[in-house]
Amino acid sequence: MEEKEISKAVIKRLPRYYRYLGELMESGVERISSNELSERMNVTASQIRQDLNNFGGFGQQGYGYNVEYLYNEIAQILGIDKIHYMIIVGAGNLGQAIANYTNFEKRGFVVKGLFDVNPRLEGLTVRGIPIQNLDEMPNFIKEHQIEIAALTIPKTRASEVVEILVKSGVRAIWNFAHTDLKVPDGVIVENVHLSESLMRLSYNLVNMKRNKKLEK
Amino acid sequence: MEEKEISKAVIKRLPRYYRYLGELMESGVERISSNELSERMNVTASQIRQDLNNFGGFGQQGYGYNVEYLYNEIAQILGIDKIHYMIIVGAGNLGQAIANYTNFEKRGFVVKGLFDVNPRLEGLTVRGIPIQNLDEMPNFIKEHQIEIAALTIPKTRASEVVEILVKSGVRAIWNFAHTDLKVPDGVIVENVHLSESLMRLSYNLVNMKRNKKLEK
Repeated sequence: MEEKEISKAVIKRLPRYYRYLGELMESGVERISSNELSERMNVTASQIRQDLNNFGGFGQQGYGYNVEYLYNEIAQILGIDKIHYMIIVGAGNLGQAIANYTNFEKRGFVVKGLFDVNPRLEGLTVRGIPIQNLDEMPNFIKEHQIEIAALTIPKTRASEVVEILVKSGVRAIWNFAHTDLKVPDGVIVENVHLSESLMRLSYNLVNMKRNKKLEK
Repeated sequence: MEEKEISKAVIKRLPRYYRYLGELMESGVERISSNELSERMNVTASQIRQDLNNFGGFGQQGYGYNVEYLYNEIAQILGIDKIHYMIIVGAGNLGQAIANYTNFEKRGFVVKGLFDVNPRLEGLTVRGIPIQNLDEMPNFIKEHQIEIAALTIPKTRASEVVEILVKSGVRAIWNFAHTDLKVPDGVIVENVHLSESLMRLSYNLVNMKRNKKLEK
């Protein structure tokens, strides 16, 4: 496929298309029109056509989209048609939850190692993956060609760990620490700030109540 | 404060302002100019002024923003100046991670109960909170005025659990199940789709590599 610039908004929506197409495949659906997909996804059909046209317009008038083809194309665009080796830094509940979530592995994200500073965790395993001391991390990253590190540690330790990760060759950080990481060019950060998500929920909740009061 | 419509984009940014203002307060900073805040947050000063003007323009020429005042105003807008009672449905690693995260409680989100279908978890406690069977949930929600439910269960069980939650009076669902929930009007859903976040990371990673190749 030819490379072209795709807008951030479209990229943000792609994983959701991917999920729906995967579910369609699981239920044996081979093709689908933008109208049908629109109903399922609660997005307008024209939005769907516009989004999917970014990838060369797989849809055909009167035929619709070939589900498997589109699924595979999106996988390729998202880079999940390849294997990515990952480590998890911070083997607390959240780190262990991620290590245990086999769906990530199905998408090509293979957790090769777990690291923690807590000596009591050392030697324990999660889904067969041993928890190692942070000192072992730099060599491990190089030896196992680790590209991605999930950061599930408190924010106070984040910057020192990020420095080690970047020096050792990690290219992407999946950051759960509640702070903005400083990384050099050429290193990707994807944030999951759970507190912020909870605050947005709270805003919507109180705002709904306020509006209800105004209506009365 | 007078109510007025605030754009979604601003709301999305508010929790980040709140975090930075909190950190400023912790370090004893009493006031800050939009320029200083701009440097710290890596956002333009004009964006900051525009965003914060939504709340009545607390900033004064030559004085800057009163950190504590702004912090408290944003807390009020986000609804985190009040206590919200919460339960967690699904007491696996992720559910336990959320239950253990005391920072949520500091923001007013108090976890009152943990629920699971797994009988082996029953009677265990996380941070003093007992894990109960799902059958106990409807009464518990009513008795403890639970507003929010964090949903950390597999997507296959999500819709049946959501129905129980809504019937029992829950007004907001913090959804970690990898599916789109169907809820009636008047119920808020805030999604945390970890797989989608990981796919965006993957896209940015492969796209960076592609661009590097093109540069060569």
